[in-house]
Amino acid sequence: MTAVERLQRIFLQSLESGFGEPEWNRQPDRLYAPQRYILGMGGKRLRPVLSLMAAEALGKSATVALPAAHAVERFHNFSLIHDDIMDEAPVRRGKPTVHETWGNNTAILSGDALLVMAYESLRALPTRILPEALEVFNRTALEVCEGQQWDMDFETEDQVQEGQYVQMIRYKTSVLLGCALELGILAAEGSREMAKAMYAFGLELGTSFQIHDDILDAFGDAALVGKQVGGDIRSNKKTMLWIHLAKTQGSFLRTWELQKSDEKVEAIKMAMIEAGSLMHAETQRSHHFKLAMAALDRAKELGAETADLSALADWIFYRKA
Amino acid sequence: MTAVERLQRIFLQSLESGFGEPEWNRQPDRLYAPQRYILGMGGKRLRPVLSLMAAEALGKSATVALPAAHAVERFHNFSLIHDDIMDEAPVRRGKPTVHETWGNNTAILSGDALLVMAYESLRALPTRILPEALEVFNRTALEVCEGQQWDMDFETEDQVQEGQYVQMIRYKTSVLLGCALELGILAAEGSREMAKAMYAFGLELGTSFQIHDDILDAFGDAALVGKQVGGDIRSNKKTMLWIHLAKTQGSFLRTWELQKSDEKVEAIKMAMIEAGSLMHAETQRSHHFKLAMAALDRAKELGAETADLSALADWIFYRKA
Repeated sequence: MTAVERLQRIFLQSLESGFGEPEWNRQPDRLYAPQRYILGMGGKRLRPVLSLMAAEALGKSATVALPAAHAVERFHNFSLIHDDIMDEAPVRRGKPTVHETWGNNTAILSGDALLVMAYESLRALPTRILPEALEVFNRTALEVCEGQQWDMDFETEDQVQEGQYVQMIRYKTSVLLGCALELGILAAEGSREMAKAMYAFGLELGTSFQIHDDILDAFGDAALVGKQVGGDIRSNKKTMLWIHLAKTQGSFLRTWELQKSDEKVEAIKMAMIEAGSLMHAETQRSHHFKLAMAALDRAKELGAETADLSALADWIFYRKA
Repeated sequence: MTAVERLQRIFLQSLESGFGEPEWNRQPDRLYAPQRYILGMGGKRLRPVLSLMAAEALGKSATVALPAAHAVERFHNFSLIHDDIMDEAPVRRGKPTVHETWGNNTAILSGDALLVMAYESLRALPTRILPEALEVFNRTALEVCEGQQWDMDFETEDQVQEGQYVQMIRYKTSVLLGCALELGILAAEGSREMAKAMYAFGLELGTSFQIHDDILDAFGDAALVGKQVGGDIRSNKKTMLWIHLAKTQGSFLRTWELQKSDEKVEAIKMAMIEAGSLMHAETQRSHHFKLAMAALDRAKELGAETADLSALADWIFYRKA
């Protein structure tokens, strides 16, 4: 069993045996059932695993970071519920989304309650680290909201620069990975420098992770990814690949704008290869991964045991789905 | 200038001069403009005034309770933004609602960010009281979500008992008034017993307040209330008046169910008077007000200076709008 699997298991056991259990039995059930539904959907549990692994990297028991792990996982799932409403997404991880199942109103409200539950998890941290944990968490939470707003704004903007795009994905995705690690370090009584190094590791790993997601959406193996590839291309989503191609092939992209065919996906993928867009995105993915590993090296110099985190980073970097 | 006016002014000055200012300058503006818009709409500022007044009742400066005051006001406005989406309300305090102005997606998201900002306000409290403040705030926040879910569930239920209705309004409205007072007491380093007494005062005052709202919606003076009366009756809303009348005049109410006319409003108001529904609601309003004043007496016995809170309660009880 790898360290990731071991920590996933610790997290899931704590989820099932009821971390914050009194809250789950609250009424009305219509408000709490959606929370159980989305938290039970599975997934890699990347964020809570990062919190637990950060604590272990400082020689502490993973359990000291359980409040942090639940806080970031609850926050992540709150944001999925609300994002799915905004994106009108019918399916998540192969299942109907919360708003598809319970309607938009209950999805808004159960998401709100899950955000409150994230703060209820944080409250279980020792009092002396609570103000700093709240500061990190609040800043991150606002940045995630800002990232989602940028993402929605980009849909209606003609021109999006790569720098704006990278900033958007850092806010929408990467900062929460950094936050998960930083909270794990705080829970393990690590130093400010250690927290900063681990945050940077998560931030860059998350950026590499999100660029990887963009690449897999277009160029992944459908059998492995578990869904039809090319969804972003069909919907003209301004990913790093798209933004790169648009710089030289803007009029070509516009000719396909209103189509959603397989032919469109194939033509644009071919153009992305020929124009060097795929290569560019792969280079950027590696670049941010290297920055992540450099930050992890700093954490090691500061005394952290980073072997498990390094293995996790490799697992993220080499994933096919 | 009354104590209420003085504390409203202190709160507004702190709002304008930027309590939590760094956050207000964040980007994108589309996410933060709705927060400024709804916080700037005015209103009685009842919740923050309660926090500040609670601190003064213990002989402390109102300013110690400013973090609590901003937390409850931000939370209240977050809940208004999201409730208005769910209720499809076009107007609040005579102005277009946030979702009418910016669309549902930005309303969901800016509400989320405002909820995070409420926790950012709480963070400014002294560390030693932060865990307890978070506990009170989280429990209250979940109850408000639960109250809103009950309220939505009641719309599609044939039978709602008065007990269920009272529980719903306590969760949706009253607990936040109790929370505002309890946080003010915590900020002023009051005892557990004092916090409990003040919470009970807020809970009962809020219940009386909400029943009063129901009565004013049907029987208020349109010129004073500032809107057409009878909205609840037109939409068959299960208020305390409606639930009382339905117990004896269910078939009469069903004959009007699909209408929205002035004739309907007048007929049902008349029936509410004849069946004793108005009298019953007035009795319940007074009953909860008396419970509030009894709780305030306990706070006085425990050493609080309650004259201003008593005057505020009277202002609430005798209001015409």
